[in-house]
Amino acid sequence: MDTPDVLIVGAGPAGCSAAMTLRMRNLKVLMFSAAPSALEMTRRIDNYPGLPSADGKALQQSMRQQAAEMGAEIKSGSVRLIMKRKKGFDVLMGEEIFSAKTVLLACGAARKAAIEGEETLLGNGISYCATCDGMLYRGGKVAVAAEDESAAADTAFLKGIAGVDYYALKPHTLPEGVTDGGKPVKVEKTPEGKIRLATKDAEKEYDCVFILRPALPPTSLVPGLKVEGNTVWVNDELMTSVPGVFAAGDMTGLPHQAARAVGQGNVAALAIARYLNEQNAASVK
Amino acid sequence: MDTPDVLIVGAGPAGCSAAMTLRMRNLKVLMFSAAPSALEMTRRIDNYPGLPSADGKALQQSMRQQAAEMGAEIKSGSVRLIMKRKKGFDVLMGEEIFSAKTVLLACGAARKAAIEGEETLLGNGISYCATCDGMLYRGGKVAVAAEDESAAADTAFLKGIAGVDYYALKPHTLPEGVTDGGKPVKVEKTPEGKIRLATKDAEKEYDCVFILRPALPPTSLVPGLKVEGNTVWVNDELMTSVPGVFAAGDMTGLPHQAARAVGQGNVAALAIARYLNEQNAASVK
Repeated sequence: MDTPDVLIVGAGPAGCSAAMTLRMRNLKVLMFSAAPSALEMTRRIDNYPGLPSADGKALQQSMRQQAAEMGAEIKSGSVRLIMKRKKGFDVLMGEEIFSAKTVLLACGAARKAAIEGEETLLGNGISYCATCDGMLYRGGKVAVAAEDESAAADTAFLKGIAGVDYYALKPHTLPEGVTDGGKPVKVEKTPEGKIRLATKDAEKEYDCVFILRPALPPTSLVPGLKVEGNTVWVNDELMTSVPGVFAAGDMTGLPHQAARAVGQGNVAALAIARYLNEQNAASVK
Repeated sequence: MDTPDVLIVGAGPAGCSAAMTLRMRNLKVLMFSAAPSALEMTRRIDNYPGLPSADGKALQQSMRQQAAEMGAEIKSGSVRLIMKRKKGFDVLMGEEIFSAKTVLLACGAARKAAIEGEETLLGNGISYCATCDGMLYRGGKVAVAAEDESAAADTAFLKGIAGVDYYALKPHTLPEGVTDGGKPVKVEKTPEGKIRLATKDAEKEYDCVFILRPALPPTSLVPGLKVEGNTVWVNDELMTSVPGVFAAGDMTGLPHQAARAVGQGNVAALAIARYLNEQNAASVK
């Protein structure tokens, strides 16, 4: 394969959306898929326009297939390092090196599982997104396990529709009207389909446990990449601080929603097309 | 109906996406639908993630139905004026006045038809979007009717895939490598399914005529609204210069794409939810 015009790191909604629009611009796309996307781990998504009550996994798969059918090449594997070269980039995946003219980071919000059982129950009684799943537990009993103050708004929202217990994963200022149940150490499914949450001292059962953390930065993927808090800094064209490297989707900030991610993928794709045009024009002169 | 939390002007992809996410936040939504959305006038859209080769009209209708099923109230009619009140807004639609706590402008890019036959053939041999429809005419013969320099990039893209004649709707600096065929005055469908484009002096037939104009501003809808060129100014939260009035979709700038519009609708909805929370908190104090 010739050097791709764009190498996309991540094959979630942002990466797939960008791949489609890049293909409509006739650009060569290589996309790497590593961990399952957040969408893929979502049991049901109600606010993706055009697909009511969609199954997250099926929607994610159909996006990937659509991108592939439009001519994007998709490979499995985790990108370890992106290195700027005189022209374009070298991308280290596993032990292989791939070249590309530009790079789009669309890896999703980095989340580090901290509670035993969290990863296996994600999408199955454990949720990372109050907006996405809150209404499913209306009138029920849920727990919020929060890392910091950023969980306050989602906690208030959940309290409006369900009974809420609050657990602090790390010490922080609690939202108004809650008490700290302690640090959760384990979650597991009961035979009755509830989620049993255990702290060092106690156990309690819920319909769902919402684990709310700010995203983690893609620390070491691109040397010199500017981050702000937990998100990758981008300009209006979704270009990062490294010229030729763009970012889209959950990496660039809140809200972590599929609709926003596909929108950003679309915007990034057309910004990349313009960037490549300008590069070509400059090299001809 | 109680005063809606949000009155949405426009029921295209941005408005529908916002309505869905606002409903997931349990907010009361009233949405006004006036002219057909740009999506509705699109014969086929290939880069909407999750729905390959979608029919624009069907996709638009399904989004509206999804929003309605989630509890958004949708009315037909053109909003004429939005007036700020001490608390919230009064919105004049026809001869009726509706109140709302906040307003979301999602009216799409205002376009003024200038060529006879343009409106009736839109989506049927006339296109406003090179990215959306260009590849359908690969290897064919198309015309670009352009209002100003902003059409240069799309023209270059089309020249890479099809034969292109260029027509200036208004005098402007032409893109490199084209000559001006004159000002188009009429387009009509031939019995063979081609589009016949007529200037004062000549006639020629094409597979498609791309009419490329910058968007027009929502001039008089909201007094005091800040616009930049042809787009509504918004901050990172998609709030306009008028507190409590938000904007999303094609109104806020390029690219005019359904994926970007649904993303902006989603972001605006959650920003509005935060804004209403802050207003509530302030009024309690």
